[in-house]
Amino acid sequence: MKQSIGPKAIIFPTPVLIVGSYGEHDEPNIMNVAWGGICSSAPPSIAVSIRGERHTHANILKHRAFTVNIPSVSQVRPADYAGLCSGRDTDKFAETGLTPVSSDRVHAPYVAEFPLCLECRLIQIFDLGAHTQFVGEILDVKANKEVLNREGQIDIEKVEPFSFSPADGGYYRLGAFIGQAFSIGRKD
Amino acid sequence: MKQSIGPKAIIFPTPVLIVGSYGEHDEPNIMNVAWGGICSSAPPSIAVSIRGERHTHANILKHRAFTVNIPSVSQVRPADYAGLCSGRDTDKFAETGLTPVSSDRVHAPYVAEFPLCLECRLIQIFDLGAHTQFVGEILDVKANKEVLNREGQIDIEKVEPFSFSPADGGYYRLGAFIGQAFSIGRKD
Repeated sequence: MKQSIGPKAIIFPTPVLIVGSYGEHDEPNIMNVAWGGICSSAPPSIAVSIRGERHTHANILKHRAFTVNIPSVSQVRPADYAGLCSGRDTDKFAETGLTPVSSDRVHAPYVAEFPLCLECRLIQIFDLGAHTQFVGEILDVKANKEVLNREGQIDIEKVEPFSFSPADGGYYRLGAFIGQAFSIGRKD
Repeated sequence: MKQSIGPKAIIFPTPVLIVGSYGEHDEPNIMNVAWGGICSSAPPSIAVSIRGERHTHANILKHRAFTVNIPSVSQVRPADYAGLCSGRDTDKFAETGLTPVSSDRVHAPYVAEFPLCLECRLIQIFDLGAHTQFVGEILDVKANKEVLNREGQIDIEKVEPFSFSPADGGYYRLGAFIGQAFSIGRKD
């Protein structure tokens, strides 16, 4: 028997997307976005939802580009810090000690230390009420070599990503493998 | 030093969203969607991306409604099964033994056994290439009582959700709490 708990924005897992952008004078900035996800396979695209008053909102509109960076468990502090203050009055790279690197595909910075980044060209803008949804075409994915396996593919257990819980505001690490998709549910 | 691995649709974590809809003659159906996530706080909304040829695509267009159900680790087999065949020729509820329940807020079925469901009214449709993105306003969230704490709030550790990895096609459970958002990154 289910119990109603009202209209809330809750799913599990919710990602921790660190969105990189340049400011008006190309100051590198990052923010912490929980509302987003992959939204198409072709072109490979990602949606990130950002409130209109955020510094990153103006940055993406100006440069038509952003990066999405995935932090590891060991980087939870700088990742959280990116959501605690504004790039308008804070150099978050300097404050966290993270290193901005200019993407070679779009005009946006990525985070050198975070294991994974997606370089995105803005292709759509949708007004969804409190948030604007920016859709970026993923022009390239770059990964730190330490998280690649021998075949050059991303090893999720080396990435050690984590998740945000909209229910309790906690960050949770990813746990053990439980089965293979398109396979474990087969009946024959 | 980062290495380019090309334009791929990869982030961690990616959710496992079991989308419930009614068919032309109100046959209840579910499918397994990885591309989606919360997309606005007000109105609380969720985006799910679905290919045009999918049965669920026609169902949502017809009834302007869907549910999003979050399965537990113990339900990985029926959740995966929902992505292995089409509701056009399979009664996935019958095949999995899951129970469809009519939502009281929208014309769509939810899964009785899965711990959490979102009842969604279709409010936007965006063409994003290979996928159509359906945006649903979340009119209500319903939770099985077993996953609520004493205060009536969702306990993520009781939900035991899991994640899909686009890198290796694996399902991974959620792991341990590592810190509180908007807090662990504070410097003072």
